[in-house]
Amino acid sequence: MLDQSLYFLEDLAVGMTATFEKTVSEADVVEFAGISGDNNPLHLDADYAAGTMFGERIAHGMLTASLISAVIATRLPGNGTIYLSQSLRFRAPVLLGQSVAATVEVTDIHLTRRRVTLACKCIVSGKVVLDGEALVMVPSRDASA
Amino acid sequence: MLDQSLYFLEDLAVGMTATFEKTVSEADVVEFAGISGDNNPLHLDADYAAGTMFGERIAHGMLTASLISAVIATRLPGNGTIYLSQSLRFRAPVLLGQSVAATVEVTDIHLTRRRVTLACKCIVSGKVVLDGEALVMVPSRDASA
Amino acid sequence: MLDQSLYFLEDLAVGMTATFEKTVSEADVVEFAGISGDNNPLHLDADYAAGTMFGERIAHGMLTASLISAVIATRLPGNGTIYLSQSLRFRAPVLLGQSVAATVEVTDIHLTRRRVTLACKCIVSGKVVLDGEALVMVPSRDASA
Amino acid sequence: MLDQSLYFLEDLAVGMTATFEKTVSEADVVEFAGISGDNNPLHLDADYAAGTMFGERIAHGMLTASLISAVIATRLPGNGTIYLSQSLRFRAPVLLGQSVAATVEVTDIHLTRRRVTLACKCIVSGKVVLDGEALVMVPSRDASA
Repeated sequence: MLDQSLYFLEDLAVGMTATFEKTVSEADVVEFAGISGDNNPLHLDADYAAGTMFGERIAHGMLTASLISAVIATRLPGNGTIYLSQSLRFRAPVLLGQSVAATVEVTDIHLTRRRVTLACKCIVSGKVVLDGEALVMVPSRDASA
Repeated sequence: MLDQSLYFLEDLAVGMTATFEKTVSEADVVEFAGISGDNNPLHLDADYAAGTMFGERIAHGMLTASLISAVIATRLPGNGTIYLSQSLRFRAPVLLGQSVAATVEVTDIHLTRRRVTLACKCIVSGKVVLDGEALVMVPSRDASA
Repeated sequence: MLDQSLYFLEDLAVGMTATFEKTVSEADVVEFAGISGDNNPLHLDADYAAGTMFGERIAHGMLTASLISAVIATRLPGNGTIYLSQSLRFRAPVLLGQSVAATVEVTDIHLTRRRVTLACKCIVSGKVVLDGEALVMVPSRDASA
Repeated sequence: MLDQSLYFLEDLAVGMTATFEKTVSEADVVEFAGISGDNNPLHLDADYAAGTMFGERIAHGMLTASLISAVIATRLPGNGTIYLSQSLRFRAPVLLGQSVAATVEVTDIHLTRRRVTLACKCIVSGKVVLDGEALVMVPSRDASA
């Protein structure tokens, strides 16, 4: 079995942060539509999107949100983290081709219940496009011994 | 231009429901990892997953959540809906190959602000694996005239 | 059963060449990241890549290398070829949207061991971006009788 | 700009190792064929593959090799690493559904040229299916200051 966990419960401290950033491409949006079944023309149909208040196609909000899942699962706390809940506020659209930085920050740690709260933000060119809060369960160094 | 919008604000009523169901395949999980960057071995590595409490690979929670996005965008309220917020509680794992039914139910309508609240559930074989609440903005028949 | 094999061992001669060319798209890079797990922001994050010596996103070196696999498996020697080894020198970046021509040339044939050596090159606009050598095992006309 | 680099040149030492593991699924193989153009029926055609010495479809060797790219780019040395060369020996087939652990180990460090040599292995159920050597260029703490 792998030991890819970046941080055990005991290694975490309030204020720690991590970021995962990627450009949301047209290919990402097309594939996300296929996986999710969310065929909203706002995401897939450039003609339709041109007639909306956005003026062009935008990424699925849940696609942007999935980058939060990436930073939690791969960087902070990292592998082994179990997702318990997530709140999401979609504050601005993400256009195809924009780079999104998903950042999480540890805001609370409950040692005995092994629960960690993270403040989550997705940022495009300095502007918050999505924010929310995650609650996760993190492996303890003891439990994994 | 498409006219796939199923319901305008004025056509909605508390208690209306809609469902979108699909089987979450290994291919969905592999592609979701690529889009999101979430390479958690719990989703991608059968050997690793066998050693966890789940005993096998499970789907990304956000992948399951994306089916809620699909039912909102394509069925209730349908095209033109703008996602404002979503809460998600991950209550049980979804195994590869399981069929997930994502159901939303209108629980509140705010006509002047054009906001609609939906209770959201994802169900596998009768068991709730994810629930939460969505807040969306819905086009009005007037505004679109 | 298919019979797409272009060349048996006895049909090969030193100096024979074949080429496979394709444009490496953003979609290819996004999917390659998903398959490989290689989420290097140099490939996926336009903002990050802008700050590197490349100035923009580049394709994964192994993605470019995979075109060599294509020309070997589908053109020279073709179906039935077994890959034994490959060396790769990454000499220049491939930008998204560039067309890569992967060329192989037979440089040595060992009839009794059924082994063939191929010199391999990937070229973009006349410039070698990758070169190396492949060693493969090729079906004999006798053995397949 | 992100600072996702796990190890700068000065942080590396001979003997350090890292592993990335994933299950090579049918979906991975199908997508890899699409990206690479390597449509060898040994990978894509179960009927054809049944008649070969392997008895069933196997993964592309270059797909397995791409996991080495993942471990180098995301774990050791990590982001910012530039791939200079890679040798690959394909020693045994990888069947669809098998989990592959790609491991690299630092075997040589050339500080002034900023070059690092890594021994590379891909292992399935304890058996080496691919090995080789990578040469990479790694950012220095000084240069990035």
